Amino acid sequence: MKNPNTHTELVAKLHRINQLESVIGLVSWDEQVNLPEGSAERRADQMVLLAELHHRESTDVALESLLDSLESEGGAELSFDEKVVVREARRDFDRVAKLPAEFVARKAALDSQAYHAWEIAREKSDYAEYAPYLRRQLDMAREEAGYHGHTESAAYDFHIDTHDPGMSAAAIEPLFAELRAGLVPLVREIVNSPIKADPSPLIGLSVEGQRTFLKEVTERIGFDYSRGRIDVSAHPFCSGDAADTRMTTRFVESAPLEALFSSIHETGHGLYEQGQPVEHLGTGLGTAVGMAIHESQSRLWENQVARGRPFWRFFEPRFREIFGLGPDRISSDQLFLAANEVKLHPIRVESDEVTYNLHIILRFELEKRLFDGTLEVSDLPDAWNALSLELLGLTPKNDAEGVLQDVHWSGGAFGYFPSYCLGNMIAAQLWNTIKVELPDLEREFEKGDFSRILSWLREKIHHQGQRYDTMALVRRVTGDAITPAPLLRYLRERYLPLYQARPGSMPK
Amino acid sequence: MKNPNTHTELVAKLHRINQLESVIGLVSWDEQVNLPEGSAERRADQMVLLAELHHRESTDVALESLLDSLESEGGAELSFDEKVVVREARRDFDRVAKLPAEFVARKAALDSQAYHAWEIAREKSDYAEYAPYLRRQLDMAREEAGYHGHTESAAYDFHIDTHDPGMSAAAIEPLFAELRAGLVPLVREIVNSPIKADPSPLIGLSVEGQRTFLKEVTERIGFDYSRGRIDVSAHPFCSGDAADTRMTTRFVESAPLEALFSSIHETGHGLYEQGQPVEHLGTGLGTAVGMAIHESQSRLWENQVARGRPFWRFFEPRFREIFGLGPDRISSDQLFLAANEVKLHPIRVESDEVTYNLHIILRFELEKRLFDGTLEVSDLPDAWNALSLELLGLTPKNDAEGVLQDVHWSGGAFGYFPSYCLGNMIAAQLWNTIKVELPDLEREFEKGDFSRILSWLREKIHHQGQRYDTMALVRRVTGDAITPAPLLRYLRERYLPLYQARPGSMPK
Repeated sequence: MKNPNTHTELVAKLHRINQLESVIGLVSWDEQVNLPEGSAERRADQMVLLAELHHRESTDVALESLLDSLESEGGAELSFDEKVVVREARRDFDRVAKLPAEFVARKAALDSQAYHAWEIAREKSDYAEYAPYLRRQLDMAREEAGYHGHTESAAYDFHIDTHDPGMSAAAIEPLFAELRAGLVPLVREIVNSPIKADPSPLIGLSVEGQRTFLKEVTERIGFDYSRGRIDVSAHPFCSGDAADTRMTTRFVESAPLEALFSSIHETGHGLYEQGQPVEHLGTGLGTAVGMAIHESQSRLWENQVARGRPFWRFFEPRFREIFGLGPDRISSDQLFLAANEVKLHPIRVESDEVTYNLHIILRFELEKRLFDGTLEVSDLPDAWNALSLELLGLTPKNDAEGVLQDVHWSGGAFGYFPSYCLGNMIAAQLWNTIKVELPDLEREFEKGDFSRILSWLREKIHHQGQRYDTMALVRRVTGDAITPAPLLRYLRERYLPLYQARPGSMPK
Repeated sequence: MKNPNTHTELVAKLHRINQLESVIGLVSWDEQVNLPEGSAERRADQMVLLAELHHRESTDVALESLLDSLESEGGAELSFDEKVVVREARRDFDRVAKLPAEFVARKAALDSQAYHAWEIAREKSDYAEYAPYLRRQLDMAREEAGYHGHTESAAYDFHIDTHDPGMSAAAIEPLFAELRAGLVPLVREIVNSPIKADPSPLIGLSVEGQRTFLKEVTERIGFDYSRGRIDVSAHPFCSGDAADTRMTTRFVESAPLEALFSSIHETGHGLYEQGQPVEHLGTGLGTAVGMAIHESQSRLWENQVARGRPFWRFFEPRFREIFGLGPDRISSDQLFLAANEVKLHPIRVESDEVTYNLHIILRFELEKRLFDGTLEVSDLPDAWNALSLELLGLTPKNDAEGVLQDVHWSGGAFGYFPSYCLGNMIAAQLWNTIKVELPDLEREFEKGDFSRILSWLREKIHHQGQRYDTMALVRRVTGDAITPAPLLRYLRERYLPLYQARPGSMPK
């Protein structure tokens, strides 16, 4: 006999778990945006306690018996959407229930300590101070995979699958190999071009003006500030959910468009979150499908939209007005080229969309080797620097610019980097489809109207929640599996004309 | 048989509860400092869940049996400090355990909704929008007192005792009557004086400059920013604890010294919190004794210290430097008088230390009548305005300036206002004692050295935790019960010479 209330009870429990997760997300946001240095130890204790409370709620026996009951008896009577809720709740339940509470608490404490160790090590550019924490994070990552029945050799796959269900190192390898083969000559052609972007006239733009401009831009493309914020942190991120979406950015003097584009990037993430129906938060109907799709949203807005001519046709006058920038300081073509600068840079998040993917391929290679034991933690900086030379043609001048540049590993986020590159591929695939389905779109961009593309993304991607997994959703929307070809074609079409043309004769 | 670990187990449980409380404090701080308007509903849900989790931890049967065991068997073998821990843990336990979880969750939801209703009502100056929430808060306050065995007529006393153990409406009445009798003629004498403070040359001081100055001042007098922050909120407050102390201030164009003095006020609270030993947080050895003592700390720094000549002798040059304020714009005597402006003002938190106490007497009278049923919620604005005229000689021009000006009732904090005035009395009593025990103190202030008074307060007040209750601590440190006489004498001695002297011949 099916109890008609069982599904309702499940949803109530999921909402409750989600509320606790949103508190944990807020405390973690605060840690990166607001926390005084001397308060880190207490914060670690708080996170331990919250992780333990979350573990208890997420592994509640009553939750398990609701799932058992819905799976065994009610399955046939559930709607498609209800089945999605049950399936995703089961996946989440198993992911947590198989971990001992003691492990969860220990990991939360390490995450917090390692984050602060990383912050200090990066400031001092001293990898050795941070290495013991990375070693412990790797050990814990293997331990975690073990609880889920993965052998040590499959530990990396487990973490990749955590971020993008169904993906594995073996599935990613051929995609990255094809991308690398196409990208290395493209990068060589662009960086060897005599045409160089020159953002130097933009150096020194006031931070206040940048704040104003990026707020206007992100609001105009659709971010709802009545239920979200943007603040400053060492590493830009987007956290929270549809009920309270919190992005961060950072102002870098030497990279004057960084705050703008990183804000648009985080807005892409934020729009995906804000597109989830609030009443379904915490269930498969109100949750992003995975990191690669998430990244496809941030990249689509940052690159395909905001580095395009139509976007700049609309925003350029306001940009000039805020900063008092006349065409004598920088011409329209020079400004557009500065927004599309391609340059080898040691820092991933300051890299352009062409070279960026090589940074990811580097991290994927090193993670794989850290997990399969062919690379020791103590040898990581040397391996990083060697591979950086091989892929990018440059060697970071110190650890802060090299192996310590990213926050991810300090929080135990392994198998996360590949999602960025998968996201770039998916963004290009989506952009292809959008241009076919919404043919006059760029004329609307020129008028500052971004509503039709946002509606399209809301319908095709955001509102789908977790109904389809990464690969299935991409197939459903674009008709194809994930492939690097559209990304390579998009990059060639956007950048080769810019860097092959003579200045003053750039294509419209 | 006494188990030597029982006390240790109790302390571990108290630390755990304290960590959860610190998370709740942080989420609440965020609500007032950062929360987007459209995220209020979700925040209310989060607070409900956190309150429920806190309730569960605080009423854990294992905690109760530890207390029972320590009280019945181990009492004789406990040290003085251990007994303090047990006594205060029992008080806290009973305060929570007697409340049904359902009530706690309902109250947390109402607190959050009422706060946002108050914010909106105050913005629109529309009391009627907020009145239903106040009515519900009063009902819940009576309900809460009932769970603790207080009859309806003793409900107000219950709430007073919550903030200052042992105090009651009957105990406060004669103190306030004596204070009122002395204060009304003193205020009349000052406001009728032809000498008027004129802060108008300070209007328009840049907010950036104010931020810099108040940060320097609060750091110099002892606030430790390596484990604390100051931000902006609608109503200044200090939250957090010794591990992470968070103050707020606000910038008011028409009251150019408001941000400075409110920051010093909150710093007084912050110093009390930062003076608690971190290893004892959550126990009676690391917790403030009550609100009146807390307020004595904020008022002592704000008034006795920071409105004094020695303080300004040190800080005036830096103040002039930051704002480029020459003596032609405002003389030293005029600046000092502006820092000691006495003026009838409808807003409590913008009132000076002389008239302030009349604002409290007003609230005390109205709260008493709301609780004893002689005043209806719907009649509150009229009663407020009438009593304001009687005590202060002025009528607020609208609800925002009158009955809606304070945040407290929106959070269900009744019986809280009297603590402010008790705190003023205690501050004056402490100042008397300090001047005897540390005779050359003000010469150190002139050199910018505030370390000796802070050490004295650390030893006599901060480090005492909850070892002694409000009255006992005041007696122990000053030799007297709480009395309004020293406050009245201090106010006469500071203000009468200022407002009796002719300009240009003000006393040093």
